[in-house]
Amino acid sequence: MDGSRPKVVIIGGGFAGLSAARTLAGEAVEVTLVDRHNFHTFQPLLYQVATAGLDPADVAYPIRTIFRKAPNLTFRHARAVSVDVEGRTVDLDDGESLPYDHLVVATGAAAAFFAVPGAAEHARPLYTLADARRLRNDLLGCLEDVDAHPERFDGGAPTFVVVGGGPTGVETAGALVELLEMSVRHDRLRLDPERTRVVLLDGVDRLLTPFDPSASRYTEETLRARGVAVRLGTTVAEVTAAGVRLADGEWIPAGVVIWAGGVTVEGTLAARLPGGRGRGGRVTVTPGLSLEGHPEVFVVGDAAAVPLGPGREGPAPQLAQVAMQSGRHAALRILAARGGPTPGPFRYRDKGIMATVGRRAAVAQLPRGPVVTGTLGWLAWLGLHLVYLVGFRNRVVVLVNWFWRYLNWASGPRLIVTDLDREEGP
Amino acid sequence: MDGSRPKVVIIGGGFAGLSAARTLAGEAVEVTLVDRHNFHTFQPLLYQVATAGLDPADVAYPIRTIFRKAPNLTFRHARAVSVDVEGRTVDLDDGESLPYDHLVVATGAAAAFFAVPGAAEHARPLYTLADARRLRNDLLGCLEDVDAHPERFDGGAPTFVVVGGGPTGVETAGALVELLEMSVRHDRLRLDPERTRVVLLDGVDRLLTPFDPSASRYTEETLRARGVAVRLGTTVAEVTAAGVRLADGEWIPAGVVIWAGGVTVEGTLAARLPGGRGRGGRVTVTPGLSLEGHPEVFVVGDAAAVPLGPGREGPAPQLAQVAMQSGRHAALRILAARGGPTPGPFRYRDKGIMATVGRRAAVAQLPRGPVVTGTLGWLAWLGLHLVYLVGFRNRVVVLVNWFWRYLNWASGPRLIVTDLDREEGP
Repeated sequence: MDGSRPKVVIIGGGFAGLSAARTLAGEAVEVTLVDRHNFHTFQPLLYQVATAGLDPADVAYPIRTIFRKAPNLTFRHARAVSVDVEGRTVDLDDGESLPYDHLVVATGAAAAFFAVPGAAEHARPLYTLADARRLRNDLLGCLEDVDAHPERFDGGAPTFVVVGGGPTGVETAGALVELLEMSVRHDRLRLDPERTRVVLLDGVDRLLTPFDPSASRYTEETLRARGVAVRLGTTVAEVTAAGVRLADGEWIPAGVVIWAGGVTVEGTLAARLPGGRGRGGRVTVTPGLSLEGHPEVFVVGDAAAVPLGPGREGPAPQLAQVAMQSGRHAALRILAARGGPTPGPFRYRDKGIMATVGRRAAVAQLPRGPVVTGTLGWLAWLGLHLVYLVGFRNRVVVLVNWFWRYLNWASGPRLIVTDLDREEGP
Repeated sequence: MDGSRPKVVIIGGGFAGLSAARTLAGEAVEVTLVDRHNFHTFQPLLYQVATAGLDPADVAYPIRTIFRKAPNLTFRHARAVSVDVEGRTVDLDDGESLPYDHLVVATGAAAAFFAVPGAAEHARPLYTLADARRLRNDLLGCLEDVDAHPERFDGGAPTFVVVGGGPTGVETAGALVELLEMSVRHDRLRLDPERTRVVLLDGVDRLLTPFDPSASRYTEETLRARGVAVRLGTTVAEVTAAGVRLADGEWIPAGVVIWAGGVTVEGTLAARLPGGRGRGGRVTVTPGLSLEGHPEVFVVGDAAAVPLGPGREGPAPQLAQVAMQSGRHAALRILAARGGPTPGPFRYRDKGIMATVGRRAAVAQLPRGPVVTGTLGWLAWLGLHLVYLVGFRNRVVVLVNWFWRYLNWASGPRLIVTDLDREEGP
């Protein structure tokens, strides 16, 4: 290491932090990337882990392996607990303090429960790999409970509730129907397939609001045709261990409640940075993505209210593409401060959005282009996700898994693996 | 289901229980297989999961998938808490009671800590998949700690202690050396490769006592050549969070202590069955593998003192082969009681034993045949394990993993994945 080179600290190894780090790899700066996990998570496929289609290892990749050939980058396995923007240091949970010349805060967001009583305790979010594993264990555990005691579940007919009709909710509901079908067909679980229900709730009047209304219609029709009870204009008033109560008083019993109701920056490290806040607690940043008055501190990805760009209103959506582009922009600004070319203000380049609804069904919406649905949309979705998956090994394993599963509806990794063996008892 | 068909309950989905269940699949009996996990674990490769060579899902396979085409077999995801041999029922931890006409107890064993102070608290056993995941998280977490704070580990030179020179200890020590090499070479962890140590301890005077002395010598020489400090005739008096104290008073500091010191049946469900006990609490059984006075209750696999057979002294070793053969024998006896041919007394057929010492090095000892070592032994070991791995998908994935790893010492799944995200702090 060269002590005279500027020190860059990046907090967070998600899409935004990783993109910043990649841009700085090999440049004349000393980069320290801090993350509480030793791996990057490919978040768009977490719902597949949750519904037992993929292994946790298929969607996670060790950060050290990614930066194996970047000697100017150091990985630090720790949780950043606070930032002193005046003293220019980041405090870690193991007691150490990292000084910086430039800081990139890419700490993401967390599940937003909107103060719905019981939601934080009884509903399962789906934002981290640990979330996905817990949800999978709950889903598979619930199916085993139904098989052992069908009388406790209305005669073998459990209900699963998915709260939130955005991409995560839609994808999870679609995959859950497939998991249930397979459980009955292949695993001979004693479920009543006619009466087992997946309910997808959303407060607004259509699914996938960021998409064109035609995509929303296609998605709703496809999900309904596959047996999902889509209930729009419906808000949740309370979640308990036994189900959800809707705002109009209706009670829906539920074996598992999945919370795909949105995210918030509140409660995360970025929430304790100085300056303004946008919707969902997203940190207000300048057109160059730094904190007002602190050109050396960048906030990027889900944590920031990333501007769409000059002349365009409102912040960009919290998407992987926005995270990657904003992370890269912060890195280019850091290089500019060290003599590189100065980039113009950040401008989001929409490369299209996609969501899968299930086997051979997806929606892909290109910018200013057509909405592609059905098998073609699904193939586009499949191809793009494989291209973006980090690391060769993962790509091959994911492909083998998917192909195998597609051919014979195979089990995939339907394992209930927890940190502890089932507790020792009397 | 046909209520008039005899009810068989099998407790445990390890090698013994699975083998019994497979033998009974398709026969005129109603089989319920009970396990606290919803998967079978391929125990001989747990050390690979622990040392980050394989994913947990590579060595586990859902039990429901294995018996997909056996309509007379029901899987029950529960922990059996007690057996009433007079009333012929098995009590489960969810409050239900399963009646049986024939019972197969295949509950395995647990780590034996031999009352060494601190061992149960601070040393990591390696018998279940959860054990392997915990050990892996500890090993990788320790390496990250060394990288962050080399001064806390004698300047970046941690010591790892493996207690027990049987196959598990030997295989773990060999794989650990490879993990350490790779961590330095590929992950650029700040370890001092010259002074980082793996210490393998055993109380007797040679490694792999079930093998021919020439195999023991080869194993010891190979491990030493690869940098393992093999210390024989050495017993552990105490384990603490910081290391181990030997019987002679010597103190060895340790980042992680791995306990491969043997297993015991004490503390498991089988320990509460009536009748005699052998060494390690193994349940005494008749030449037909049933409990004395209870021809309807069989105890097989690691849980039982399985006899070698007529005219041969002592119980069989606790090996996968013994488990499989004894499980099958119990099933044949059950079929005999229902009109099938009566098998003679159980007789263990030695098909050879193997242990791998590392990359391109293993020992394979055929019955009454030569001891094969080196690359040839390693290929034999590799082939046999792949043949025995349950399920097509796992075999392919394990092969891809191994081959990839062999070609370029790739990372494999070096993920630290726990049930909880790193705790939220201040």
